[in-house]
Amino acid sequence: MRTQVAIIGAGPSGLLLGQLLHKAGIETVIIERQSADYVRSRIRAGVLEQVTTDLLDEAGVGARMHQEGLPHTGFDLLFGGERHRIDLRALTGGQQVMVYGQTEVTRDLMAARAAAGLKTVYEAKDVSIHDYDTTHPQVRYQEDGQWHTLDCDFIAGCDGFHGVCRASLPPGAVTEYEKVYPFGWLGLLADTPPVHHELIYANSERGFALCSQRSMTRSRYYLQVPLTDKVENWSDDAFWNELRLRLDPHAAETLITGPSLEKSIAPLRSFVAEPMRFGRLFLAGDAAHIVPPTGAKGLNLAATDVKYLSTALIEYFAERSSAGIDHYSQRCLARIWKGERFSWWFTSLMHRFSADGAIGQKLQNAELEYLVQSQAASTALAENYVGLPL
Amino acid sequence: MRTQVAIIGAGPSGLLLGQLLHKAGIETVIIERQSADYVRSRIRAGVLEQVTTDLLDEAGVGARMHQEGLPHTGFDLLFGGERHRIDLRALTGGQQVMVYGQTEVTRDLMAARAAAGLKTVYEAKDVSIHDYDTTHPQVRYQEDGQWHTLDCDFIAGCDGFHGVCRASLPPGAVTEYEKVYPFGWLGLLADTPPVHHELIYANSERGFALCSQRSMTRSRYYLQVPLTDKVENWSDDAFWNELRLRLDPHAAETLITGPSLEKSIAPLRSFVAEPMRFGRLFLAGDAAHIVPPTGAKGLNLAATDVKYLSTALIEYFAERSSAGIDHYSQRCLARIWKGERFSWWFTSLMHRFSADGAIGQKLQNAELEYLVQSQAASTALAENYVGLPL
Repeated sequence: MRTQVAIIGAGPSGLLLGQLLHKAGIETVIIERQSADYVRSRIRAGVLEQVTTDLLDEAGVGARMHQEGLPHTGFDLLFGGERHRIDLRALTGGQQVMVYGQTEVTRDLMAARAAAGLKTVYEAKDVSIHDYDTTHPQVRYQEDGQWHTLDCDFIAGCDGFHGVCRASLPPGAVTEYEKVYPFGWLGLLADTPPVHHELIYANSERGFALCSQRSMTRSRYYLQVPLTDKVENWSDDAFWNELRLRLDPHAAETLITGPSLEKSIAPLRSFVAEPMRFGRLFLAGDAAHIVPPTGAKGLNLAATDVKYLSTALIEYFAERSSAGIDHYSQRCLARIWKGERFSWWFTSLMHRFSADGAIGQKLQNAELEYLVQSQAASTALAENYVGLPL
Repeated sequence: MRTQVAIIGAGPSGLLLGQLLHKAGIETVIIERQSADYVRSRIRAGVLEQVTTDLLDEAGVGARMHQEGLPHTGFDLLFGGERHRIDLRALTGGQQVMVYGQTEVTRDLMAARAAAGLKTVYEAKDVSIHDYDTTHPQVRYQEDGQWHTLDCDFIAGCDGFHGVCRASLPPGAVTEYEKVYPFGWLGLLADTPPVHHELIYANSERGFALCSQRSMTRSRYYLQVPLTDKVENWSDDAFWNELRLRLDPHAAETLITGPSLEKSIAPLRSFVAEPMRFGRLFLAGDAAHIVPPTGAKGLNLAATDVKYLSTALIEYFAERSSAGIDHYSQRCLARIWKGERFSWWFTSLMHRFSADGAIGQKLQNAELEYLVQSQAASTALAENYVGLPL
């Protein structure tokens, strides 16, 4: 089997790349380790930057997002028992974000790929990549017990943090930067109306909480918890009680609870692998970088990678110019490090860190107060939240 | 002996407080442990906020500052080998800072106090404070081997970080917040023209450097050094060579060197003591708070304390109202914590911290790049540098 671009991973990065390349007449095959159902049911982020929604439109998969997604023009910061609205639209001269679950983005992209009759191999086993430092890269994998070889011009590694692409690089080829945070996020998904029509980011004495949502009838809440906590020790009741204690009185009183559809604890990590291109292999999205979820940059940074990568590949096939390819890593990393910086800063601002001691807490309080009092500081937060210019 | 306000410490805080109270017809006596010559020759900061210059004008000691001081409308950030100007005036709608050494401020205040015939006791020994929780506080001290008692209505503790006032408080009366940085500043003063007409704050691979100045013919330079370094092991030549290596090529080439007038290593500390009022005793300036010198907030925060304290005391003596006194601590601390936040942030941004690892360095680089690219982030820096509103 032969294609132009072999894409490893059928998450939103791989699917979006496939769709953008298809629009430009470039053939792709996607190789995915998991089943389609598994991919479809993964629960992830839900806040899209304008850059991302534009790209979904460009890929021709934005219709349902515009119909069902919720444009948010601001969010609340809660600290010292009071909420302060960050008016994204006013602070950024008209920009906003779109609340639309990554699960829905994935469904839309899968549907579009199926409708176009494009090939995706699900449940591929023993995937390996070869000869990406030549002009004839190969992907090998097993499907239904049969070995297959996919010849291609390029390989796109959209296979996430634990994927095979980055792991296949020779020792020393990549420099990894990593920071692990001393707490996790306990998330709960429920079919209940959100406590507030916008998001609430709360820094309480009991730790961080986030009131998020996927729709007007589906809520997603998070609590900062010690990494030693086990999800099976958190009953739904315990979750709701703890969440109430971290909210302001009005939110605590009006919170509507219900049985959890999903509940899990995720660690928080900052991670970047440099560079992101190795001959004819490109890393994109979580395969190359992870941000802590505060600030919702993960999917948005992945979308930017895909934008740069699709542009570079389209340019290559149309004009045999490798300019875009040659600059891919550098262009991505400039924006990624700003996203990493913002995500680290917003995480540090909103969570409780016992290691920083009493003065750390006082400095955090001072920063929160300054942030909501200063137009400049609020604008800096807002412009990062809606997404820095490309 | 009796006075209305006994001021402990004849540094700029104590002298400025004495002058403002004198203008309002309130009697003061200043008790200082050191000699006048010692106080006059202490070398400290040199960047004054508008709030501070206004206060010096109000105290009637601003004439020489306006004649000899250097208004600065911006400064340079140097990183990645390039300088980027922070245009304070443009970013803050017309604000600027005044470069005028603390040594000169002290001289002007001492001269004004002497001209007014106001009493200052220098070289006071065994100073102690008493009964500040009653309406009849006392200060006791020895002068020329004789014991003296100073009866007063209020005591102002302007006696610095190592002074007697905070140290006299009973256990548990005060909560102290402290952070010590893992490096020091090696400072060198020289009668050479400054390398640049404005300040240069440099983050180089070899560590932080600051090109500062006291006048057009007197320069003050600083280098980040390990706390284990000894000043006697730093020759002038070694200092100048290391400074050149931390500057951009143009600055390194045009740097004019000369023999040092003074050279010393100072540790960097963030420190706040809360509250700042105990009955009829008030702490002001370094007695209650220390900032790392990056950002030049030390003297300026002290000046704000003195402004609030003089206003409160004048109000008390004029109207027997204790409203200002009762709010003194809270009003000061709101601004102090913002100054502490800024000084900690600017210190963290500009110095090399090996403890933060490779990712810490990358995040610092990303923040510096974002800072100079974003109007909002530059404005947040500028508005803190010129001084937040009272």
